[in-house]
This record gives sequence, C-alpha cells and structure tokens, in this order.
Amino acid sequence: MKISEIGGEFALIRRLTQGKPADKRVIQGIGDDCAVIEQNKGSYLLVTTDMMVEDDHFSLKWYSPYQIGMKLMEVNVSDIVSMAGIPHYAFLAMCMPSFATVEFMDEFYKGMYASADKHGVFIIGGDTTHGHKYVFNLTILGEVEKKLMRLRSSAQNGDQICVTGTLGGSTAGLKLLEKGLSGYIQDHVEPKSRTAAEAQLIACYAHAMIDVSDGLASEITHICNESKTGAGINYDTIPLSEHTIKSAELLHEDPHEFALYGGEDFELVFTISKKNISELKKHFADFSVVGEILRKEMGVYLFKNGKKQSLKSGYNHFS
Amino acid sequence: MKISEIGGEFALIRRLTQGKPADKRVIQGIGDDCAVIEQNKGSYLLVTTDMMVEDDHFSLKWYSPYQIGMKLMEVNVSDIVSMAGIPHYAFLAMCMPSFATVEFMDEFYKGMYASADKHGVFIIGGDTTHGHKYVFNLTILGEVEKKLMRLRSSAQNGDQICVTGTLGGSTAGLKLLEKGLSGYIQDHVEPKSRTAAEAQLIACYAHAMIDVSDGLASEITHICNESKTGAGINYDTIPLSEHTIKSAELLHEDPHEFALYGGEDFELVFTISKKNISELKKHFADFSVVGEILRKEMGVYLFKNGKKQSLKSGYNHFS
Repeated sequence: MKISEIGGEFALIRRLTQGKPADKRVIQGIGDDCAVIEQNKGSYLLVTTDMMVEDDHFSLKWYSPYQIGMKLMEVNVSDIVSMAGIPHYAFLAMCMPSFATVEFMDEFYKGMYASADKHGVFIIGGDTTHGHKYVFNLTILGEVEKKLMRLRSSAQNGDQICVTGTLGGSTAGLKLLEKGLSGYIQDHVEPKSRTAAEAQLIACYAHAMIDVSDGLASEITHICNESKTGAGINYDTIPLSEHTIKSAELLHEDPHEFALYGGEDFELVFTISKKNISELKKHFADFSVVGEILRKEMGVYLFKNGKKQSLKSGYNHFS
Repeated sequence: MKISEIGGEFALIRRLTQGKPADKRVIQGIGDDCAVIEQNKGSYLLVTTDMMVEDDHFSLKWYSPYQIGMKLMEVNVSDIVSMAGIPHYAFLAMCMPSFATVEFMDEFYKGMYASADKHGVFIIGGDTTHGHKYVFNLTILGEVEKKLMRLRSSAQNGDQICVTGTLGGSTAGLKLLEKGLSGYIQDHVEPKSRTAAEAQLIACYAHAMIDVSDGLASEITHICNESKTGAGINYDTIPLSEHTIKSAELLHEDPHEFALYGGEDFELVFTISKKNISELKKHFADFSVVGEILRKEMGVYLFKNGKKQSLKSGYNHFS
C-alpha cells in the first residue's frame, strides 16, 4: 500500500506511533514543533530534529554550501523558537557523497556556525557517514520557561490569527529558480528563523504558536487540529513582500498561493486575544492579523472575494 | 581537495570544529560516543545521534524492514550504554523514497519499538522527508550518574583492556552475504547493544569505556588518543565466536581481522586495573582481557606470533 493511499506522511506517523506508551516526564511528544520534556521547576527541555536531503530540500545548482549550512541551522532553530524556547545545543549527522570536498565542507560549516553564533547555539556532537547524495540531519536541544511555552494546542475560540513578517518569499524564490528566471531568491536560499527574543515577547501575549515550515494553510490546520477549533483566514490580509509580489507577476501566479501552500518561510503564526494585540504592538509590531479562531463546527476556511472556501492542507511529501 | 587527502572523516571533523567556543555546561562535546551536558547535582544528560543510510549501513537485499528498525535503535542505545548511561528518549528523522510502502514502515517501526521497549526508550519526536533512498537518523537522550560515567579519555597506564562477548561476527555475516555464501548472518543483520544494567556494573570497576562500532583497532586508537596513552593488544586473546570462526573458514579469511578492522559488533571495550578484574567477574563475567594500556611513548601495538606490529586504524568512510 502506498503512503499516499492512507493520506500521506502525517497520517503515516499517526498510524505508526498511536497507542504507544507515554512517559510521565514527556509533556508533549510527537505532534508539535518540538518534544517537551520536564527538566526542572521552572523550565522544560525542548528537542527538535530536521533532515535536509539534497534535491528535496536544496539543490547544489542553487545553493552555496554556506547557504545549506545556514539553512539547516535556521530551520531547526525556528522549531525551538516557535515554542518560545531558547536553542542551546546542536548535533549534526551528515551523509556525504564520495565526491565531497574539504572546501565544500569548510563552507558548509562556516554557514552553519554563522547561524549558530547568531542564535547562541553550540554544536557539540554528531555522526559522519557516506552515501550517494548529501543528507544533513540536525537535532537541537533548547529550553523554555514553563510559563512562556506556547503549543499548537492552545488556541482559543475568538483568538486573532497573526503572522510575523511576510509569507511566500521562499516559494517565490524557488519558482524563479525552477523556471530559470532572474529575480529575488534570497528568501529561498537564505531563510531566517525569528529570534528567541522575538518569540518570547510574542509568547507573553499569545496563546498558540507555530512556525511556517509547510505553508500557512498547513500550519493553521495543525493549530486547529491540536486545539480542536475551526479558523477563518482572510485572503486579502495575508502579508506579502514587494519582492514576492513582483516575483509572482513574473511567474504569472498568485503570491497568496505561495504563502498558503508553499512553505519554508519560518515566520511565526500565533493566536492572540483581541485585547492583547495593541499591548504586543507596543513591544513588537512586525506582524499582521490574517484571520480568527472559530468554533470547531465552523471548519477551517479561507475567505476570498467575499466567499468561503475550504482551506486545502499544505505541503505533504507523500500526498 | 578530497576528504581522504586530509586523512578521512575523523580528520575532517577535527578540522571543522577546532577552536570553536565551548559552553561551560558541556562536559564532553565532539569526540566521545555521546555529548555530555550538566543536568543536575547527581547526573549528566547524554545525547547521541547516528545515521543509517541505505546501501551503506544496510541493504534491502539482506535486511528485513524489522531488522533495519531494530538495528537503528540498538546502534544508538549502544552509544548511551557505552558511557554507562540509561537511554530514555528517541527522535527519528527519516528520508523515504517514493516507493516506500505502509507495510515496510509498519515493520520498520515494529523492529524499532521492539528494541526501544527492551531498553526502556520512548520515541517522542522526529521528522519525515523524501529522497531517493532510505536514510534513518536517530537521536537518543539519556542520563548517567555522574560517578558512573566512563569516557574514552579515562584509561590509565597499566590498565587491562577488556572486551565483552565476542567480536567480528557482524563483519563475518556481511562478508558471507556479499559473497552469496550461506552461513550465520544474525550478528550482522540483528546486532545487539549491551544493556544499561551491564554497562553500569562494568563502570563500577572500569576506567575508560567505548562501544565497538568501527572495529577493535579503531576503538583502542580512540581510547589511546583521548587518554594520551599507548596500548598493546594480544592477537591470540581476541574473543571470537564459533560462528565467526566457521564463517572465516568458509571465506578463507582470518576472523581476527574481522574483529580488529570490521565493526558494528556493539560490544563494550573497557580498561580496568588488574586488581579489579576478579571483583567484576563476581558480578559480570562475559568479558575477555585482550591487552594492556601502556605509556604513550610505547605506541599502539598488536602482538602477533611473538612480534609487535603497528595497529592500523579501523573503518573510515573516507580513507
């Protein structure tokens, strides 16, 4: 039976892990950006792991080794940050092809360390092995103050749904590269995680939080599934950069679709009660309201041109 | 420049990570089986990560999916156990090809959980992605009582070098499979980690400890490098199973070579003062003395047929 026949990778993971015994120190297992483990009186230990595969997450045609190293670190940091955590320690397992050069690996490490240094991460372990293509796997340990931790499951009916920065830039860049068009590709080859400081500020006012790795539609669906709510997203308020709008014009495509169904923007999506928005704005203002959390029976909708349409789910490797 | 030109993967890692800032909570970073992080008054947090790549660490021709899952868990558990730690939490990142089936993944998970249940490990997070071949990366968090932790760097001049169980079985099995000969292959397709209980018992009496992932010669070299000692290994006392001896006869090869330069036996190598051997034997007797730790100036030797020869280093993906 193909994995697509049971609904893709998320369904597969549910199938494979359901009914397994839980440990009382595990606050959150599979099903959020990080696993959350009881650590001490005031804080939880956070763990995330992300794999980047050549020709699936990056192409050597388009990425410098420096950019691959940087992206690997940013992607993983973003998972810790999305729970209002602080990243600490990283572990790199890598599979290198026979033709790997010392110069390539030097640059890859420089990129990884540039990002690690920015976020205060120490790379303290790993594994090195050999294969046909590059595969990099990073695991990051971090910690979060218990009172600040924000899960996907904490959205409340009536919450405003907000997004930091702008979305769709990574997909716009990827599409330009795929079509051989020249334009702004930085959002794709050099995606940036939000910082732990920004996320902690947001967490002081927000309920649920997640990072945008698989597109806004997918992340909203995760929040709604885990929080047992519905949601309505306003098509017109999805934040797009000038670069992304311009790239979409070149591509004759709708940039909102990049934001909804693309991915790898690594901005934060959070839900917050209406009354807290102006308070958060005093401290951190780089976000937009894109929708509202609704009761579960309302479903998960996109409001476009005055009409409701079902939100498709986001990127799935095996759909 | 090729990685082999600078001396292979271990030299590459030294080059890439040297001179990087350290964190005061990190007791041991890159250079042992696990990273060791300060956790609380009595214990350290241990972290290990290991990647298994199709056609490098396993072939679908020879391994059932169940065996691949089991091996992935055992290999990682062994790294925690080799520091006298107890494994707790596992994180699986996997890259699956398009032709991956639900049945394959069901069996893979069954194998992984069979091993996890045996060692008391909970699988609580991961990542799923897509590529041309299967790549599995497991990260395990564990903990160790501070007073029991055994590093590679704690060997002392005059220590006896001991090995649990027997060595060379995994390589013997691999060679049989490669040559299409029938024989005993279980040590290759179903390698087993020693248990945390066994390692903790050994640690009560031993100085340095390491698991045999890259062959006895490689592990002894690691101990000597980290402990700044030399070592002499007695060829004749290297423990071999009847199966391995029989397989070597079929292959017209020397089984001692499998033990020294093969790998993936996942037995424990430890160094212990002479006077403690009989004491340990009262509690745990499944080990053999294979050599002695010497002063650094003596070098690292193999004693064979009454003659000293330099010990070659073990398996290196890029030598």
